[in-house]
Amino acid sequence: MNDFIRTNGELAQAVFDEIRAISASPAPGRGVTRLGYGPVETAVMARLEEKGRELGLEISHDLAGNLWMTVPGEDRTLPALVCGSHADSVFDGGNYDGLAGVAAALLAAKTMKAQGFTPKRDFCVVVLRSEEQGLIGSKAMMGKLSEEDLDRRWRPDAPTLGESIAACGIDPAPLVSGKPVVDPKRIAAFMELHIEQGVRLDMPEGPRVAIVTGIRGLVWHRTIECVGTTAHAGAIDYPYRKDALAASMAFLTHMHERWADRVARGEDLVFTTGILRTPDAGTFNKIPGYVAFSLDARSLSNETLSSFYDEYRREAQRFGEAYGVEFRFDPVGRLVAQKSSSELIGRLHRAADELAVPVIEEPSGAGHDAQTFGLEGIPFAMLFVSNQNGSHNPDEAMRMEDFLAGAAILTRAAIDFDR
Amino acid sequence: MNDFIRTNGELAQAVFDEIRAISASPAPGRGVTRLGYGPVETAVMARLEEKGRELGLEISHDLAGNLWMTVPGEDRTLPALVCGSHADSVFDGGNYDGLAGVAAALLAAKTMKAQGFTPKRDFCVVVLRSEEQGLIGSKAMMGKLSEEDLDRRWRPDAPTLGESIAACGIDPAPLVSGKPVVDPKRIAAFMELHIEQGVRLDMPEGPRVAIVTGIRGLVWHRTIECVGTTAHAGAIDYPYRKDALAASMAFLTHMHERWADRVARGEDLVFTTGILRTPDAGTFNKIPGYVAFSLDARSLSNETLSSFYDEYRREAQRFGEAYGVEFRFDPVGRLVAQKSSSELIGRLHRAADELAVPVIEEPSGAGHDAQTFGLEGIPFAMLFVSNQNGSHNPDEAMRMEDFLAGAAILTRAAIDFDR
Repeated sequence: MNDFIRTNGELAQAVFDEIRAISASPAPGRGVTRLGYGPVETAVMARLEEKGRELGLEISHDLAGNLWMTVPGEDRTLPALVCGSHADSVFDGGNYDGLAGVAAALLAAKTMKAQGFTPKRDFCVVVLRSEEQGLIGSKAMMGKLSEEDLDRRWRPDAPTLGESIAACGIDPAPLVSGKPVVDPKRIAAFMELHIEQGVRLDMPEGPRVAIVTGIRGLVWHRTIECVGTTAHAGAIDYPYRKDALAASMAFLTHMHERWADRVARGEDLVFTTGILRTPDAGTFNKIPGYVAFSLDARSLSNETLSSFYDEYRREAQRFGEAYGVEFRFDPVGRLVAQKSSSELIGRLHRAADELAVPVIEEPSGAGHDAQTFGLEGIPFAMLFVSNQNGSHNPDEAMRMEDFLAGAAILTRAAIDFDR
Repeated sequence: MNDFIRTNGELAQAVFDEIRAISASPAPGRGVTRLGYGPVETAVMARLEEKGRELGLEISHDLAGNLWMTVPGEDRTLPALVCGSHADSVFDGGNYDGLAGVAAALLAAKTMKAQGFTPKRDFCVVVLRSEEQGLIGSKAMMGKLSEEDLDRRWRPDAPTLGESIAACGIDPAPLVSGKPVVDPKRIAAFMELHIEQGVRLDMPEGPRVAIVTGIRGLVWHRTIECVGTTAHAGAIDYPYRKDALAASMAFLTHMHERWADRVARGEDLVFTTGILRTPDAGTFNKIPGYVAFSLDARSLSNETLSSFYDEYRREAQRFGEAYGVEFRFDPVGRLVAQKSSSELIGRLHRAADELAVPVIEEPSGAGHDAQTFGLEGIPFAMLFVSNQNGSHNPDEAMRMEDFLAGAAILTRAAIDFDR
C-alpha cells in the first residue's frame, strides 16, 4: 500500500486538481459543472487524454464520443478488461463523482507501465460521457438511446441532447440504431470505482471501502396526482371533506410503515417521496383538493421491488376509496436490479485481503454506467469509496487516503486478472 | 311566506342581477371581482345606495366608507338595530357572498316601508367594505386597523390597503386610531344573513336555513418549516435518513387521527393543512431535507382550540425527535371564538317557527363581519342560507327560494324586535 501511495499519489492529485480547475462552476464556491456532451466535458476529456498520452497509452474514441486509453495486452484478440467511469458532473456538483473512477483506472494503467507489466489481454481505461443525465454515454455506446432521449433538454432553456451531441461533431444516428458501436463481446469485464454517495462508509472506526453487491432496481413515478375537493377550511366539517392532502399523507405514512416492516424483515428496500406539493393557489385556510407527489422505490431484489410496488398501487386504491379521493398515476418508470459478478466480487475481496484494506459489501442505491455493461451481459463489479457531505452538491468531499486504498484494490485486481 | 316572496322577489332579483352585471370579472365566466376599497366595490355601493334611495331610506356614510341606509325609528335616541353584510368579493368570486346579506336587509327595510311600519328604534341596513381581506371595513369602523394592515397588499403588484383607502377619498388616520368612528353604544344588535359556505344545508330533504350558534375561533400558522437532510433517495438506507417530508406526513397524519378522536367525542373542531410543499429544487430521486406547511384549526370552544393547539406543538416536538428533524414555527395567529347572542338566537327561532321555515343550528367556520361587532360587546346573530358549489369561486350558487326563506326570517325578527 505504501508503495502504491508513494508512486501514485502525485498523479491522482494532479488529475483532481487540474480537472477541478478547468471545470469550476461559473459561480464561485459552487463546485464543478461539466455537463454531458457540453464544451466543459469535452475539455475535461481532452485533459484526461493528455494524461493517458503521458503514460504511453493507446488513445481512441468510439462513435459515441467516449474516450478509450489502452495498455496493449499480449494477445490482442482476447476481449479486454475495462475500467473507468464518467467525465461529466451535475450542475454545481462535486469533483469526485465520476472522476474518481477515471483516476483509479489511470492509476492501474500507470502501475502496469511503471512495473513494465504487460497484461495478457488489453487493459482499457474508459472515460464515459454524460452519465448524470441517465447513463447517456454508455447507452449511446450500446446504440440504446431513444429518439425521446435525443429530444430531451436537461433544463428548458438548454439545447436538446441530440443538438449537444451534434455540436460535439458526433453523428447521433448510430446511437439510436439499437446496435452497439462498441462490440460488447470485445469486453471481458467492467470494473468501476465510485464515491459511495451514501453514509455507511463514513462511520467512525468502520471500513471506508465497499465492494458493491449490485445495483438496486428502481421503480418510479414523477407525478402521482390526488384529486379531491377544494373547500373552505373552517366551514367543512370532518365527515364532509375530500381532502387530497390528508388522504395522500395517510397513504404515504402507511407505506412508510410498510417499508419499515420490510426492512425489519431483512428485505433490501428504500422508499422515498421526493416531491409533494399542494397547488400554488392553495392557502392555509383552504382544504386542498389537489396534491401531486412522486415515488422512488429501489431494491437489489426485483421480487421485493415488484411486491412493494403492487402493494403501493393496491393501498392507493384503498386509501382513495376511504377518503373519497382519486389517485392518478403517470406512466411508471422501471430499471431492473443487477447483481455484480460474484467472480469479480471474489477477485476484489482477494485483492483487498492482500492489501489488508478492510471492506464491507453493500448494494448501490444509485444508478451507474456499470449497469449498461451489465445489461449487455458483461460481468461487472464496483468499488465504493467513502465520501463526505453527500453527492451532487458543491460540498461533496473524498479523502485522498480512502481513494488510494480503493484504487490500490482496483489496480491489484486488474493486474491479477489473468494471473 | 308567499306574501313575502311576491312582494320581495323582484327587488332581490334586481339587486343580484344589477350588481353581478357591474362587477363581472374581466375574464368571461370567472364570476365577479369587487375588491375591497377598489373602484368596482365603490360602484357596487353606489348602486346599492340608489336602491336604498328608491325605498326612501336615509343615506349616510361613516368615516371608514361603509354605507348606512336607515328606516328612522320612533325614538331616535335609542341604539339602532343593524342588519347587513359586505359589498366586496374575492378575486373571481361568487355573487352572493356578502351581497345576499345586504339584499336581505334591504328586503327587511322595504317590507317595513311597504307595510307603513315605523320601528321603535332606527333600523339600519349597513353595507360594509372589504370583508374578504380580513374584516377590514368593519374593523376600520371600530378604529381597529393596524399600520401593518395599511401596508398590506392583497397581491404583490397591488397597491397597499392604505393607498386603496386614500384613493377612495377616505383618510386612513382615524381607522388606525383605536377609537371607533361609529359609536358601538349606538348599536343595539347586529344580524347578518350569509351563504353557508359549507355543505350541511344542501342535503336532500334537510333544512336549507341555519341559525348560527357562533363563529369558530381560529389558530393558524402560515409557515411551519420542517428541516432535515437532503440526500440521495437510492443511497441512504432507512436508519440513516432525516426525511423532512416523511416526518411531517407522519406528524400530520397523527394529528388528523387525534382530530377524528375529538370529533367522535363530540368536540367542535376542524383541522386543515392547506399548504404543504417540498422545495422547487426537489426531484423524485432526492430525500427531501425541507418541507413547509401551514396550520388552520377552528373551534366554537376556545378551550378545545387551545388544547388541540398545545397537543399539536407537543407532538411536533415528539415527532421531530423521533425522525431527527426540526419543526420551526412562524408567529401564531389567533382569533377567539364568539358565541351568538342567545336572546337573538331565540328571536330567530321564533320567526322561523312563525313562518314554518325549518332550520338547524350550526357554528360558522368562516369569519364574518358579525365578529367585529361581537368584539365590541354588541349582541349578534347570523342566518345561513344553503349554497352550492362552495364559495370564493365563480361557480358559487344560491337558490332564490332558499334566500327568500332566510330573508323572511330576518325581516320578521327585525319587525318584531321591539314588539
